[in-house]
Amino acid sequence: MQAALREAVRSGRLASGTRLPSSRDLAGDLGVSRGLITEAYEQLTAEGYLRSGRGAGTWVGDTVRAARPPARDLAPRTPGARADFVPGTPDLALFPRAAWAAAQRATLADLPHDALGYPDPRGLPRLRTALAGLLARRRGVVADPERIVVVSGVAQASALLGFVLHARGADTIGVEHPGSPQHDALYAAAGVRTVPVPLDGEGLDVGALRASGVRAVVTTPSHQFPTGIAYSARRRAELLAWARSVDGLVLEDDYDGDFRYDRAPVGALQGLDPEHVAYSGSVSKSLAPGLRLGWLLVPERLAEETVERKRTMDLGHPTLDQELFARFVERGDYDRQLRRCQRAYRERRDALVAALQEHFPGAEVSGIAAGLHVIATLPARYGPGDRFLARVRDAGVTVRTLEAYAHPDAAPGQPPSRASPAVRLVLGYAHLTPARIRAGVRLMAEAADR
Amino acid sequence: MQAALREAVRSGRLASGTRLPSSRDLAGDLGVSRGLITEAYEQLTAEGYLRSGRGAGTWVGDTVRAARPPARDLAPRTPGARADFVPGTPDLALFPRAAWAAAQRATLADLPHDALGYPDPRGLPRLRTALAGLLARRRGVVADPERIVVVSGVAQASALLGFVLHARGADTIGVEHPGSPQHDALYAAAGVRTVPVPLDGEGLDVGALRASGVRAVVTTPSHQFPTGIAYSARRRAELLAWARSVDGLVLEDDYDGDFRYDRAPVGALQGLDPEHVAYSGSVSKSLAPGLRLGWLLVPERLAEETVERKRTMDLGHPTLDQELFARFVERGDYDRQLRRCQRAYRERRDALVAALQEHFPGAEVSGIAAGLHVIATLPARYGPGDRFLARVRDAGVTVRTLEAYAHPDAAPGQPPSRASPAVRLVLGYAHLTPARIRAGVRLMAEAADR
Repeated sequence: MQAALREAVRSGRLASGTRLPSSRDLAGDLGVSRGLITEAYEQLTAEGYLRSGRGAGTWVGDTVRAARPPARDLAPRTPGARADFVPGTPDLALFPRAAWAAAQRATLADLPHDALGYPDPRGLPRLRTALAGLLARRRGVVADPERIVVVSGVAQASALLGFVLHARGADTIGVEHPGSPQHDALYAAAGVRTVPVPLDGEGLDVGALRASGVRAVVTTPSHQFPTGIAYSARRRAELLAWARSVDGLVLEDDYDGDFRYDRAPVGALQGLDPEHVAYSGSVSKSLAPGLRLGWLLVPERLAEETVERKRTMDLGHPTLDQELFARFVERGDYDRQLRRCQRAYRERRDALVAALQEHFPGAEVSGIAAGLHVIATLPARYGPGDRFLARVRDAGVTVRTLEAYAHPDAAPGQPPSRASPAVRLVLGYAHLTPARIRAGVRLMAEAADR
Repeated sequence: MQAALREAVRSGRLASGTRLPSSRDLAGDLGVSRGLITEAYEQLTAEGYLRSGRGAGTWVGDTVRAARPPARDLAPRTPGARADFVPGTPDLALFPRAAWAAAQRATLADLPHDALGYPDPRGLPRLRTALAGLLARRRGVVADPERIVVVSGVAQASALLGFVLHARGADTIGVEHPGSPQHDALYAAAGVRTVPVPLDGEGLDVGALRASGVRAVVTTPSHQFPTGIAYSARRRAELLAWARSVDGLVLEDDYDGDFRYDRAPVGALQGLDPEHVAYSGSVSKSLAPGLRLGWLLVPERLAEETVERKRTMDLGHPTLDQELFARFVERGDYDRQLRRCQRAYRERRDALVAALQEHFPGAEVSGIAAGLHVIATLPARYGPGDRFLARVRDAGVTVRTLEAYAHPDAAPGQPPSRASPAVRLVLGYAHLTPARIRAGVRLMAEAADR
């Protein structure tokens, strides 16, 4: 009754100013008790939909404004494709449902009630302790629990650092060129503009970095995204020397550092100088991006401000998720999952490299030692890139070239540029089975040869 | 071996410049294979801990900077107390573990793999649909799924709106005085300063609001925090008229709107004018704050910017949590939980009111119709407030007076002020059993009478 009346007012069916029948009359018409009508009138009067006056009865108020039509659909769209080599997503079918479910049960079974209260904005101490052990052991990170902040992923880590640096006067930050285009919007939201810094074969060009005047720079030293190179030891030292000389900060985005196939992973840059490197990582590649769970390690001088930023962004990470992941790590489930992914992704990488050699003879494949994507430089006859992309797109293959990761503000002559004659593909393979990889590469080759 | 060597370099036990033994010698000393040593040297050289030169052997590099001592503990502290009436936390023992576990199992059992990918920054469509139904039904909100953003709670909703308003040129926002002190830091982080607007018996003083010059204001119309009043119908209309006249925005923080004990809850203000009211709520009072799950409904003109802000803060809410809560709502579990809490909290409210009447005769108790706290105005003989607070604190009772929620920038004469002779207590009761409530009130009365 009450809801129907409210809706009638809101939709305009009962126009502003309309006199309503007396509660006695309406009760009689509807065959309900008069008390029910009185209560509905009082309730909707209290809410502001109706008005009433002594002896004047009840009428529809003029307060209601109808909603406009729905906002346009803002959801991202993924077009269908016969093969999709866009990097960035792991194989979601490898998500360990049974182990996750077991950790969920264990969490709800032994969790004290108090653990359901507002979180520590830094993250659950138990999880930070587990992560400190994990990151020290697997990634060579200096990771005492006191300098870890549990975040929703590398994107939130970037947002937090962007705000912290901006509050300290920074309005620019260096990024690798080519690099991940995601950073631009994240830092822009914090008021910080990204400045492209070119790469050479050993990593970020530190001369260009120094010349740019920035005092913070985002890097992917273990497996540069997208070129796939690992920063050389010399370049690591030069980069840290730069950071010390300008009292600056290197942001290490360890987005796929867990995966190295032919030997042990290269340890994190952060281990060399934790007071000049902020380290971030997540479970997005090892478990699932949908979990939104990651970690950020910051130099001591930035710790308090970073935690306060986290607090004012969301008060802290969901506690049940943290309790669960702490148990998942402690039980050895996370290590098991990493080994399982490692095996699967090595097989896929091998399938991709073999398929490229078979279908694109003469192609040079690089960045294969680690990570979840490779770079394939095709012989000149496949170029130029625009024509190649148009052909394979028509055949239903979604793939990106290195140029797609060029920074929009990079100087026109700076590589990678569209003027380059060679086609350099950035091929993500983690989300594809070996059979799909082989079929996709064949499809691409057939389209290119047509 | 490798980890031990890395740690030795990092800790300074192996000083910069130290020559390391040849791989053959060290292998002999340690009784391990030479290959193992070679691999460790190479790895740590690649990482930058060691350096090596042709024929010069291997030595410790000068790149490593040791970490400073751990940052000081930033965790919030809750001191032990014999009775704690501070409002803001529900009874965490009422968290429905069995139903939650069932929803978890159902989620992992029937979830398609794709659902584990990056989230829609607005929130899962299935959850937004479930929430739209719930909020329309329970709170009279105009809630089509397209204008809902799934957020981590009311704090994140505030942060998002703060950033959106700031980007549109706002540098101030009105807040209720007295009101929740949490808002100040959240809006300050977005570059927006809070301006106190006083209340009268019907709600926010709209004349003072107009005079303040702000164009957005944060309100708690269903059960004002902390005074406990419900905005009158007239005041609701005046507030919306103000918003329309200045092309402004009313932020409705529906922090405990689900709980009304003696009749149906007052419908949300948002239902009256969804283009001038942004509505936010969460499960923090109905389930647990640690879940960090809430919703924000914004006018259409702000929808796109709000979603983009959410995206650049954390890319979107964790998908598994959203899938789970969608099922929890669909199965009727959420309604059951609200009914269960409603019963428990009404009993506690009644216990508190009775205990106050027994132990503080003459006390006036208000704001009891709804929410999870009441206001008790004690007879003048208990004052002044400072002395009362000191006495009960010494007896182990944690309690706040209304003055604790005064805005720091409010004019000295504006109520509530410390000059007020009456002691007005803000008593949260949801987290306490009836027995604890009675014991706490008795303890407080004994301490005050001493």
